Amino acid sequence: MVKQDRAIRTRRTILAAAAKVFEERGYQAATITEILASAGVTKGALYFHFESKEHLAQGVLAEQDQRLTVPSRICKVQEIVDTVALHAYRLQTDPMVRAGVRLSLDQQATGLDRSGPFLRWSEIMLHFLDQAQAQGELLPQVNTSDTADVLVGSFAGVQAMSQIVSGYQDLGHRASQLMRHILPNVALSSVLATVDLSSTRGALVFAERDGER
Amino acid sequence: MVKQDRAIRTRRTILAAAAKVFEERGYQAATITEILASAGVTKGALYFHFESKEHLAQGVLAEQDQRLTVPSRICKVQEIVDTVALHAYRLQTDPMVRAGVRLSLDQQATGLDRSGPFLRWSEIMLHFLDQAQAQGELLPQVNTSDTADVLVGSFAGVQAMSQIVSGYQDLGHRASQLMRHILPNVALSSVLATVDLSSTRGALVFAERDGER
Repeated sequence: MVKQDRAIRTRRTILAAAAKVFEERGYQAATITEILASAGVTKGALYFHFESKEHLAQGVLAEQDQRLTVPSRICKVQEIVDTVALHAYRLQTDPMVRAGVRLSLDQQATGLDRSGPFLRWSEIMLHFLDQAQAQGELLPQVNTSDTADVLVGSFAGVQAMSQIVSGYQDLGHRASQLMRHILPNVALSSVLATVDLSSTRGALVFAERDGER
Repeated sequence: MVKQDRAIRTRRTILAAAAKVFEERGYQAATITEILASAGVTKGALYFHFESKEHLAQGVLAEQDQRLTVPSRICKVQEIVDTVALHAYRLQTDPMVRAGVRLSLDQQATGLDRSGPFLRWSEIMLHFLDQAQAQGELLPQVNTSDTADVLVGSFAGVQAMSQIVSGYQDLGHRASQLMRHILPNVALSSVLATVDLSSTRGALVFAERDGER
């Protein structure tokens, strides 16, 4: 058990170092040697966990859709809002999440399949939307698959714009505005009236989730 | 006059070469020497038009918000839709526009101010939205500045997702879905009923505009 804990910690150390190096140098220019030096682990330890630079990148990419579980809500539309708001908050506060999102938009990362995060996020959103639809929370014309894709794609751009124009300072506001523009065409107004769409929602959800642990 | 034409052509040749090199190598790794070789112009000609790599990049960045004028419409919401649809179509068909958009999302382009295209696009959208509002096309609660930012940010992500998952094949559909999700919260339903939101709109607008020349 202790041994397993140590392996998890080592894996985490390596991923954090990889995230840092990918963010500073980009996928193409980054080398395993640099990641090794930054992580301060042995070559053997690194290759035990990740067999190549691509595997390291996939590990970093996958971090953005890990640990995004929000407290369960009766209202599934609120769960969608909370998931997006928590992701926005983690982008502002967690370098690993930031590195993963940036890597998924890294145009020079040829040979690296960057579709994973988009497809996984779409699946997560689709799952919530289907639950919301089954509970009668959505407007009759909604195609949950199209809506899931719109939510994921549009958020990817809103976060990029926030990063570029304000260094993520205004991401809470931008994420909230995005939801306010899209959700009235997705959810019943009677449902939406009960949903908290405020720009500080992400921090609240993070604190609530942390308290549950 | 002939001399000026030649200067415009040379500038265009240099920008096209720069776009190609930035797209292949990324901003950070690209060199003026490579751009010179690809353009096939003299060093003197290049420096006459662009004094540094950053100026070349700003030239490429600026191309995405050039020549985006769409035929004027009585309905300003249609003009917004047409501008977005034309941009989507040009992303699919014009390597220079594609290079500009990719450069604006290039995370490794440190020292390059990439906020320009986002801010200029927001201004263009704000201008249309203010016109639409003055003509009574919008819902009463709309804040045109927030809506302009949502449109620009969300489109940036939708195009990135389309590029990553389908090589831009599905961009017409995604752009159309984005508009269908956002505009009903922006425009009066009586206005929207007259607006063409179809996924082939971009090609139509491009052909119409070309015919006008």
